Amino acid sequence: MRYRAIVEYDGTNYSGFQRQLTKPTVQGEIEKALLEISRLAVSVTGAGRTDSGVHATGQIIAFDLNWRHGSSSLLKALNANLPVDIVIRDISAASEDFHPRFDALSRTYTYYIYNQTVRSPIWRLRSWHVTRPLDVELMNGAAELIIGEHDFATFGQAPQGTNTIRNIKNARWQKEGLQITFRIEANAFLDRMVRSLVGSMKAVGEGSWTVVDFYNAFLAKDRGKAAMTAPAAGLFLTSVSYE
Amino acid sequence: MRYRAIVEYDGTNYSGFQRQLTKPTVQGEIEKALLEISRLAVSVTGAGRTDSGVHATGQIIAFDLNWRHGSSSLLKALNANLPVDIVIRDISAASEDFHPRFDALSRTYTYYIYNQTVRSPIWRLRSWHVTRPLDVELMNGAAELIIGEHDFATFGQAPQGTNTIRNIKNARWQKEGLQITFRIEANAFLDRMVRSLVGSMKAVGEGSWTVVDFYNAFLAKDRGKAAMTAPAAGLFLTSVSYE
Repeated sequence: MRYRAIVEYDGTNYSGFQRQLTKPTVQGEIEKALLEISRLAVSVTGAGRTDSGVHATGQIIAFDLNWRHGSSSLLKALNANLPVDIVIRDISAASEDFHPRFDALSRTYTYYIYNQTVRSPIWRLRSWHVTRPLDVELMNGAAELIIGEHDFATFGQAPQGTNTIRNIKNARWQKEGLQITFRIEANAFLDRMVRSLVGSMKAVGEGSWTVVDFYNAFLAKDRGKAAMTAPAAGLFLTSVSYE
Repeated sequence: MRYRAIVEYDGTNYSGFQRQLTKPTVQGEIEKALLEISRLAVSVTGAGRTDSGVHATGQIIAFDLNWRHGSSSLLKALNANLPVDIVIRDISAASEDFHPRFDALSRTYTYYIYNQTVRSPIWRLRSWHVTRPLDVELMNGAAELIIGEHDFATFGQAPQGTNTIRNIKNARWQKEGLQITFRIEANAFLDRMVRSLVGSMKAVGEGSWTVVDFYNAFLAKDRGKAAMTAPAAGLFLTSVSYE
């Protein structure tokens, strides 16, 4: 039987989602918990391969398992065997051919910037500390330019043999107290794409780039033209949508 | 010259604010940073002695120091010598007799409950995970009873030779997404008082106590009548007010 689950994790202590031989990963920990409760090697697939240090509140995974006790007892058994920084929020039976990555219609990420001269101990593992005051209106000027179907070669790399065209459905910056939050939804993302977009829009917000500089970098379709990539700690995979 | 400063800290890795001989504390770390930049032993006083694991975004401290380079350079020098989980948010010259504890008119604390069946990796060090659904209206029924000047012997201990009467100016629960937040302002608090109030109001919110049970425990002025004390991780000292 195939199961589909929503996963939340604090990515601080993991080398990303995807299983690695020698380093702790989120996939690795979930597979360990599945082995623990079933005594069988179970392979997990995820909707997004989040990088080292990136968090998630709505990662979607799938796996096949024979389990006779209902999905609510499966949820409890898994959570009892997962470390404190990973949890299964919800679990349900899925169709036999459900694939969290290929079936996804869109992914939504949220990025947090803590915009203050002084760093924040409370937010240090959940945000990017930017000291120069950011102009959110200018950043939204840049965000509007990327909405729709475009070539994002400037902002990330595609897997070999595939293209760098992606379709952005929403992209918007918002000021919430000392935090400046970026929410972006797309059909799919290139490797490092959200963090690269955030880094270049931050350059616009602090005035080191104009919106036109951003647009020219975007049009250049050249990875070398992007500004710095924003750090992992501010990034959250918040949801994945399916039909 | 006496300085007054606002301090933010993640209390997770500290044995509270107050200096201890063998354990890491917030006061101890600030005094170490002051020693580092001045080469002199400087004693720090704080407005509130937060417990082990309790956080702060608005702790107020004072200390005496000879510093010739202005308070903004003092802020930078101190922050450069403080660990990542402690920061001075602001610093200014104070009158020679300023005392952060004795001069305080009121303190405000905020407590976060994460109210969901499943625990949260993201919020685990910043909230109390309560699985049973809480009724915020009932909890506010209890909160209203404590406003004003009352004897809080049920909810905390006073330093020897002093009384347990405190004056609550505001106390209110609010639902914010999956978080239920308690904000309380008082002239001063007894030892463990906020966490003890939160624990007893949570009993009301989940239905194991009625509001009348809460009121009777309150009127009993008996420490043994309080429900469980809420854990430290959910508590933040958010501000201290002065004339």
